[in-house]
Amino acid sequence: MTCEFICVGTELLLGNILNTNAKYLSEKCAELGISVFYQTVVGDNPERLEETVHLALSRSDCIIFSGGLGPTTDDLTKETVAKAFGLKLVEDARAKEELLARMNHYGRKITKNNFKQALIPEGQKALYNHHGTAPGILIEKDGKTAILLPGPPGELVPMFEEYCIPYFESRSNQKIVSVMVKLIGIGESEAAARIEDLILNSTNPTVAPYAKTTQVHLRVTAMAENEEAGRALIKPVLEQIQAKLGEYIYSMDENDDIEDVVVRDLEEKHLYISCAESFTGGMVASRLINVPGASNVLKESLVTYCDEAKMNRLFVDPETIKKHSAVSFECAKEMAEGVIRATGCDVGVATTGYAGPDGEEAGHIFFAVSFKDKTVVKEMNLAFDRNLVREAAVIRVLALVHQILKET
Amino acid sequence: MTCEFICVGTELLLGNILNTNAKYLSEKCAELGISVFYQTVVGDNPERLEETVHLALSRSDCIIFSGGLGPTTDDLTKETVAKAFGLKLVEDARAKEELLARMNHYGRKITKNNFKQALIPEGQKALYNHHGTAPGILIEKDGKTAILLPGPPGELVPMFEEYCIPYFESRSNQKIVSVMVKLIGIGESEAAARIEDLILNSTNPTVAPYAKTTQVHLRVTAMAENEEAGRALIKPVLEQIQAKLGEYIYSMDENDDIEDVVVRDLEEKHLYISCAESFTGGMVASRLINVPGASNVLKESLVTYCDEAKMNRLFVDPETIKKHSAVSFECAKEMAEGVIRATGCDVGVATTGYAGPDGEEAGHIFFAVSFKDKTVVKEMNLAFDRNLVREAAVIRVLALVHQILKET
Repeated sequence: MTCEFICVGTELLLGNILNTNAKYLSEKCAELGISVFYQTVVGDNPERLEETVHLALSRSDCIIFSGGLGPTTDDLTKETVAKAFGLKLVEDARAKEELLARMNHYGRKITKNNFKQALIPEGQKALYNHHGTAPGILIEKDGKTAILLPGPPGELVPMFEEYCIPYFESRSNQKIVSVMVKLIGIGESEAAARIEDLILNSTNPTVAPYAKTTQVHLRVTAMAENEEAGRALIKPVLEQIQAKLGEYIYSMDENDDIEDVVVRDLEEKHLYISCAESFTGGMVASRLINVPGASNVLKESLVTYCDEAKMNRLFVDPETIKKHSAVSFECAKEMAEGVIRATGCDVGVATTGYAGPDGEEAGHIFFAVSFKDKTVVKEMNLAFDRNLVREAAVIRVLALVHQILKET
Repeated sequence: MTCEFICVGTELLLGNILNTNAKYLSEKCAELGISVFYQTVVGDNPERLEETVHLALSRSDCIIFSGGLGPTTDDLTKETVAKAFGLKLVEDARAKEELLARMNHYGRKITKNNFKQALIPEGQKALYNHHGTAPGILIEKDGKTAILLPGPPGELVPMFEEYCIPYFESRSNQKIVSVMVKLIGIGESEAAARIEDLILNSTNPTVAPYAKTTQVHLRVTAMAENEEAGRALIKPVLEQIQAKLGEYIYSMDENDDIEDVVVRDLEEKHLYISCAESFTGGMVASRLINVPGASNVLKESLVTYCDEAKMNRLFVDPETIKKHSAVSFECAKEMAEGVIRATGCDVGVATTGYAGPDGEEAGHIFFAVSFKDKTVVKEMNLAFDRNLVREAAVIRVLALVHQILKET
């Protein structure tokens, strides 16, 4: 089944709001095995909306609309869609009753306009709305389906769950199964080159790379009659990816970020981590603390931005800074070892570098991880802007912690 | 001028990412006085992309594309658009040089794929990218304009500012002048209610409110024949906003975030700040360190997540924690005062709270700012999710620092 979305609303075209409905509907359709090929945003304009509806009907089995079901005269979605299907609007008794009850409950004055919301295309199904005044509508005619949902996410989401998921499940015999492989330490083009045959030649499952800040994600997606058959199709592809890119993979779970993996690693080994952060200024610690359960692995952390803090808090030798500067292999090493001495943690992490934006050295960074009398220091040149340099460094240093703990 | 957007990427159709580019581009076009009638999302599929490009060319003066400029074989935007305009792709010498320099700087291996990114439609303009490997492209042919920008917002946004705004301004004989008024401490609906007359009745300049996490921004936009005339139209409106909402305004500069304002406040008064962060885990410090020049106002900072760290590093009285718990008015006060004692800074900041996601108390937070023998403690209940609770707390505590320093 192919589906497309038409999101109606001038507020989207003016950039007043983010289109979270499109993301939500896309995610849900992917889970339901429905192929979404287009999303369109169009304003509250009858001609342009009508043109968009006709185009969508010509190329997709199902159209999901969001927005334009309100009581005002510029809410036109229902009228336009009914016209496109050649359907008359008639009053739905239950919709009218619920509308009156809701308006009374909130003590709102009922105007003539409001009754417009109780109109439904003749012979079609009203999707009663428990969170607002606009009922949704399900139209099935001439082999096409149209689903009209109200724009506010607080109404659209519960209505999709209540009405649309059961409707699509009852119609489909295919299930989409998808796994996200997450890599750090390799660029998108190099990763893609290593598995070029998989990307180009796989049709079921498909393999698609996505570049993130200093990460690459590979989505492997199979279509099958059920979850188990889908997993069976995906398995050999995952094995090939593992064989070719295994050293860079930190997770095959959609919901994992690198900090989730690191907190889990530490929890499993009953270890505490602490950081000595210079140019990342607390970002490593705050990423870790963002993970529920972080209190089992992190007690405290230090932001040592100036040289004196590095010497006083972390016992960095003043001679080290004098000789090599604070942005050096030697200083990063002493910082990582020093934070273990200062806090009694098991794993010590350090970052030092030039975030920029100015200066020859911008993006030149060192980070270090110390664990069990061994300290690994890495040097990198990151050609990003100031904030991305930090972001990239945080991800890289967490990946190094993961790698060291995995090897232990 | 009419414009539409085509955002290319299967990750949008699968709901992996939110389409923040569409919102950003919509907002900017609205400011520039460009009418946007359609936004389309389409996947990395040559036929569907081509069909979408032809439709857009038939109805709009200008199309802005985002995404699909990467080095992999499924990045097809440039190839498809060039074909639609009947243009051959040729290598751009500077694009190739910059690509090689960037790859060398990163220490990345260059694969054959990469060189695809240095191709530009013949006779058209490359928009060189300072934040990534994919140059953008500006095509002008047969009375139509196409602008191709890379998908990552960290590349698209600076490229739009550098190339597209001057391009659109040069084509229009009207200059758009816009000021963003930034407020913290008041909700969107209350702010809008206080200046309802301005929002409803102003046409030039217009006043539009935008709700952000725990902030409200008001954009005041005038169209005039030149910058000076635009500023003159805006001035009385800013005065009215100042009179009605002045206490909540922290900046009237588009580029300012609250941390920029706080770093400036501290620099002007030659003060050092340090934080004692519990549930924000280093986010306050890292926001401050993100500001160029932060080293003049922050030497070090502490993440004191567990109770012992609060007692040992910040001299919080064990009795205080025993009696009131670590998430209390008293503990926040002692933390803010303790960080001054521990680090010798002038302004001490503390955060303690329950970020959630679980538990009765989720979102219950305290933060404190201590300066010149006076400590102000605030208690809040933030009904957001775990990450937004932190984000909101960071903004609120920085706003409190600004307020206290302004009053001094």
